[in-house]
Amino acid sequence: MRKPVIAITMGDPAGVGPELIVKALASRVIRAKADPLVIGDAGVLNFMADRLGLKPPRPDEIVSASELDMKKLRPGRPTVESAEAMISYIEEAVYMAAVGDVEAIVTAPINKDAAQMAGFSFPGHTEFIAHLTGAEDYAMMLGGNDLKVVLVTIHEPIKKVPGLITEESVLKTLRIADASFRIDFGLRKPRIAVCGLNPHAGEGGLFGSEDIKIIAPAVKKARSKGINAIGPLPADTVFYRAVKKKEFDCVVAMYHDQGLGPLKLLHFEDGVNATLGLPIVRTSVDHGTAYDVAWKGIASTGSLVAAVKMAAGMALRRR
Amino acid sequence: MRKPVIAITMGDPAGVGPELIVKALASRVIRAKADPLVIGDAGVLNFMADRLGLKPPRPDEIVSASELDMKKLRPGRPTVESAEAMISYIEEAVYMAAVGDVEAIVTAPINKDAAQMAGFSFPGHTEFIAHLTGAEDYAMMLGGNDLKVVLVTIHEPIKKVPGLITEESVLKTLRIADASFRIDFGLRKPRIAVCGLNPHAGEGGLFGSEDIKIIAPAVKKARSKGINAIGPLPADTVFYRAVKKKEFDCVVAMYHDQGLGPLKLLHFEDGVNATLGLPIVRTSVDHGTAYDVAWKGIASTGSLVAAVKMAAGMALRRR
Repeated sequence: MRKPVIAITMGDPAGVGPELIVKALASRVIRAKADPLVIGDAGVLNFMADRLGLKPPRPDEIVSASELDMKKLRPGRPTVESAEAMISYIEEAVYMAAVGDVEAIVTAPINKDAAQMAGFSFPGHTEFIAHLTGAEDYAMMLGGNDLKVVLVTIHEPIKKVPGLITEESVLKTLRIADASFRIDFGLRKPRIAVCGLNPHAGEGGLFGSEDIKIIAPAVKKARSKGINAIGPLPADTVFYRAVKKKEFDCVVAMYHDQGLGPLKLLHFEDGVNATLGLPIVRTSVDHGTAYDVAWKGIASTGSLVAAVKMAAGMALRRR
Repeated sequence: MRKPVIAITMGDPAGVGPELIVKALASRVIRAKADPLVIGDAGVLNFMADRLGLKPPRPDEIVSASELDMKKLRPGRPTVESAEAMISYIEEAVYMAAVGDVEAIVTAPINKDAAQMAGFSFPGHTEFIAHLTGAEDYAMMLGGNDLKVVLVTIHEPIKKVPGLITEESVLKTLRIADASFRIDFGLRKPRIAVCGLNPHAGEGGLFGSEDIKIIAPAVKKARSKGINAIGPLPADTVFYRAVKKKEFDCVVAMYHDQGLGPLKLLHFEDGVNATLGLPIVRTSVDHGTAYDVAWKGIASTGSLVAAVKMAAGMALRRR
């Protein structure tokens, strides 16, 4: 079987993206699963390979979308040029995926402050890629082998979360999760646990009404459409049940910390961020630019390698 | 060294409390750490021992605070009498601890619906015991060997949480956690991680302002009082840091699901609930009455045994 061609964006040149890509490609573990195509800057990649004493990526594995002046670049010190470049890698990769030149894209981290230097107005990578692909209905998943979590709300203040939990938003997330776990992860009828919003999923209304009034009807509607959604379930025990009892394939959490504390406890080192519901396959490393250790060669390639493997699996199932 | 005398309340007679106590006492693992005194009903305990084919607790190990009619009692079917009895066990145990007849109390689970049959008007065990001991400043901890979590708010709807996160409530929790980890757990200067309220602890204000405006000043004040509080920290990675990197002795979470998803993922089977800040030592099993499996002898004694061990350690350090 032909390996999928996967675009890997280089991310912030001042962050750990370039060195992770150089290290991961040098180790060959990625090429076993995919034909990588790095969308970035050949000069930066070669500089980093030289700095770390590693073999650089082959020229035919690089799509050079910028020509940054290495004399002006320092670790942890983004410039307007480097910031604009990192945004252009994403645009190029999404374009290549949209026209079928690559079968999936994997993104290395960008820095929010740097992105703003480039006039970037999106909350993050995910929203930008959704915009580029024209997707309105998408959901963020973070996952590893033991646990996969999909979020109904992502980067919202807790104060705003209850207002964003609607029958529509929950049902939409359940539809996206169900479709993706069938199509991208090859499960016939994914078992989707749905967290309550409140402690003990509201304890029968004692600790809040949204669980009964909003989430339960959304789950019921989802089930009527053939989605194997179960809930609302108390979010303090659902992760134990998913991981240790293997009761569920996926946990849908109502908000960021409800889902990601348990997820990162298990998958801090090898977690993958995937955007479900897009017309293209997109995964990402589950960490930031790590400016404090950038260019030192000490950052772990675990998440990048896992992201490429997950993207490769998804791409194959979409063929 | 003399073992501490520990009162164990029998909990809901229609739940798993009686059988767990009989099983745990029969296994002798508890007597290695403590001299147990069961506050409950001798008839129920003897019935349960007989039913499970186990040796009953010794008569001198039982303070019989009720004489329930076993003919009227069924598993999972509390009566007004059994409900009133379970409340009286708690009152008796707290009284014995207050006057020094026992050095700690460990509580088996009560059922909220049953409690209401007895006219019980408290949200739970913890609030009732705080009331009985006259404690105004207390905090709930759930913990095991790998992770200990203290909550600023407990059984509150998410909608109400932001309004309850004040400099006072956070500082109070930090003071209680610090004092208890020094006194009860024997740490010289406990390292207390403080979660942010919002995703990424607010991402510098982008995802909410409470982290900067409320939690950060509370942490600063705590530090000025010699408390080794660190934060506000992003709650998605703090549990990984506490458990895998051993950076913290305790994590203070702002609300229920933020702290207890990670905690129960690790310590579902052997988690202990402790009320910190009380004049007495009180721990509890970290599970409910489990009516669906009550009286079958299949419920795990893991949490009860862990609760007695933790209480014994705390009692010894308080001598």
